[in-house]
Amino acid sequence: MVTPQDISLKQMAQDLRQAARMLASAPTAQKNRAIRATAKAIRDNAASILAANDKDMLAARKKGLEASKLDRLALDEGRLQAMCDGLEIVAALPDPVGQSIKSWQTENGLHFNQIRTPIGVLAIIYESRPNVTIDAGALCLKSGNGVLLRGGSESFHSSRALHLCLQQGLAVAGLPIEAIAIIPSTNRTLVGEILTGLDGLIDVIIPRGGKSLIARVQAEARIPVLGHLDGICHIYVDEKADLEKAVAITVNAKMRRPGICGAAETLLIHEKIAPTALPLIARALTQAGCTLRGCERARAIYKDMEAAQEEDWSQEYLAPIISVKILADIKAAMAHIARYGSGHTESIITESEAGAEEFLSQVDSAIVMHNASTQFADGGEFGFGCEIGIATSRLHARGPVALEGLTTYKYQIRGAGQIRD
Amino acid sequence: MVTPQDISLKQMAQDLRQAARMLASAPTAQKNRAIRATAKAIRDNAASILAANDKDMLAARKKGLEASKLDRLALDEGRLQAMCDGLEIVAALPDPVGQSIKSWQTENGLHFNQIRTPIGVLAIIYESRPNVTIDAGALCLKSGNGVLLRGGSESFHSSRALHLCLQQGLAVAGLPIEAIAIIPSTNRTLVGEILTGLDGLIDVIIPRGGKSLIARVQAEARIPVLGHLDGICHIYVDEKADLEKAVAITVNAKMRRPGICGAAETLLIHEKIAPTALPLIARALTQAGCTLRGCERARAIYKDMEAAQEEDWSQEYLAPIISVKILADIKAAMAHIARYGSGHTESIITESEAGAEEFLSQVDSAIVMHNASTQFADGGEFGFGCEIGIATSRLHARGPVALEGLTTYKYQIRGAGQIRD
Repeated sequence: MVTPQDISLKQMAQDLRQAARMLASAPTAQKNRAIRATAKAIRDNAASILAANDKDMLAARKKGLEASKLDRLALDEGRLQAMCDGLEIVAALPDPVGQSIKSWQTENGLHFNQIRTPIGVLAIIYESRPNVTIDAGALCLKSGNGVLLRGGSESFHSSRALHLCLQQGLAVAGLPIEAIAIIPSTNRTLVGEILTGLDGLIDVIIPRGGKSLIARVQAEARIPVLGHLDGICHIYVDEKADLEKAVAITVNAKMRRPGICGAAETLLIHEKIAPTALPLIARALTQAGCTLRGCERARAIYKDMEAAQEEDWSQEYLAPIISVKILADIKAAMAHIARYGSGHTESIITESEAGAEEFLSQVDSAIVMHNASTQFADGGEFGFGCEIGIATSRLHARGPVALEGLTTYKYQIRGAGQIRD
Repeated sequence: MVTPQDISLKQMAQDLRQAARMLASAPTAQKNRAIRATAKAIRDNAASILAANDKDMLAARKKGLEASKLDRLALDEGRLQAMCDGLEIVAALPDPVGQSIKSWQTENGLHFNQIRTPIGVLAIIYESRPNVTIDAGALCLKSGNGVLLRGGSESFHSSRALHLCLQQGLAVAGLPIEAIAIIPSTNRTLVGEILTGLDGLIDVIIPRGGKSLIARVQAEARIPVLGHLDGICHIYVDEKADLEKAVAITVNAKMRRPGICGAAETLLIHEKIAPTALPLIARALTQAGCTLRGCERARAIYKDMEAAQEEDWSQEYLAPIISVKILADIKAAMAHIARYGSGHTESIITESEAGAEEFLSQVDSAIVMHNASTQFADGGEFGFGCEIGIATSRLHARGPVALEGLTTYKYQIRGAGQIRD
């Protein structure tokens, strides 16, 4: 077997494109077999995957990687099991390829059928979390897309060990192993080659990572990008909020995992409920280890708070810090979200149905919630098995991108000799 | 009223964005009123629209514009009536905004609803056909999107006269006239400003026109592009084709209107049927005024044909010329289409159900047909009222782009205090 190091990126992409064509028309059962065989390969090779991860962890500690990034990088038996569970879920989900979205007939007897098809070949550029290798591989496999993976340099050994399991899965099912490729190098110049689309061999780029990666992709990409921007998520505690829900949801939205993109970064509170709600919420957040940065009015009610600066309203902390602002009403809250938000996820806490419906219909973010934690912004929680990421672009897909988000469609028209007048 | 000339492009785009926000939440009835009032304005102002068009036609003739372009540019009572008919159809179509695409509940009691929303603000850059002004304006209005129109310099006066009708429609319905803007100049440098997205004021660019426009947009655009490429459409006459259908469909697909993107450019014929089919089709095409350029095998069967060069297979003639190739079987035909096609529209002529299904499932173009003319590749023929264009990109929308193609979606999640474990 030729190893990836032996072949050029261009050659790899050519093989990938050819393999993707076979994957595009592979039967559902065969694709599911490959996904389940990947889970088996992960279980069978757990020791060597964890050994590869140890190498990455050692290097990362030497490099002085921060704690939150070390946590994202670390693998253990439990996380491997979670990957296998995710694979089983993806195998069990309906195959999007070939699904009819809509069908109809016109007066001249032509029969129209709009059906889902794979996009083709995706390039996914991600950072330290090695599980993205498996999530992305499984979703692409099931949706019939070839994929070129480019993981972060920190997770180099872990991602390659997991990639081998995906290829093992493909091989067991009799599918071409070239359909899931991984860049065999941490060389950053290769990313530039990918961003120009490798002469039509790549159809779309999905960057999943920090601001500098996204900025580079947006500046250099010459092919379509399915963007994942910041999650500057808001909780708005309405005048009619149930205080118990407000406290529980805000603490969960911020502190369950402060480092994910669905974590709340700003708490907005209606001025009428602020005197009672803010102290309760602030104490609970503080108790959970969160630092607060408030506007003047918030600090007048609750003293134990730093002063928020203008920059705070547009900052994705990804840390146990939250900004707090008191506003006149729901309109002011929606205006704040429109101005400072990133179009990711926002939640209103209220017992008013009218207020909730106004918020859900007017706020223009990928995910809008009523009385629920923003941390539900996750493909798994949506029932999608796993996700490629949360899209905040306005074209193609928004919110958690999973199987359907990785397809396009075509129109089949069945006639009986019709010609146009 | 401030006229467009008085304000800068940036200011126009800012006003447009604000107006688009109002349009996004406008009730269906109000939007329909604006569309119908636009039709009335066209009828009421027919004389001045035709006078504006006369100016454009005069200038175009002076410039020596070719006949096919003059034809696209020309307006008359009949074409104005067709625009009004299109407007009535768009008004009668269901409003896509707020439509639920899918809804479901998860075990924790969260209720998910995926609903359509407007994209936001579009910029549409097009060439000589003035009706695009009305089609694009009506579709954007109905789908709740603001739009910045930039028509070709040849249609400058016609497009502006029609744009006034759209603004009249908006005004009659009490909607902000700034929601449909038109660039008040033929200055090409303004296009550059649009392509960079005017600091986040434009969400997507839709170029509709020739190769040089598309090439410029793809090279310079810094915001998402909904692409419309060439239509290198194929007719494949299968071994099991009905000859009568093959003749009628090929002649229609090529010659009904040779200058549209859905016109067939290449005729592929199965070698077993070629000796009988080719002479019949070739004679009918010739009779209709079409020139043929054939491969060696085609010319051996039918002498009255130029020799096709390699470039012919990837050429969009948009003229009464067709290239002809004889192939071993359906697989060879599909391989030819994959290699030379532009992913627009292809049609198989066959009485074999199995062959038709193989073609419809395997050929990876936006529109695939069985026993029908490729000239049906048109939003109106699909029942969409009209269209912004035929998309050949793989993301967001493919095929005729109309109301649904101009929307995105968001997820509404309704909870009862759920927090995530």
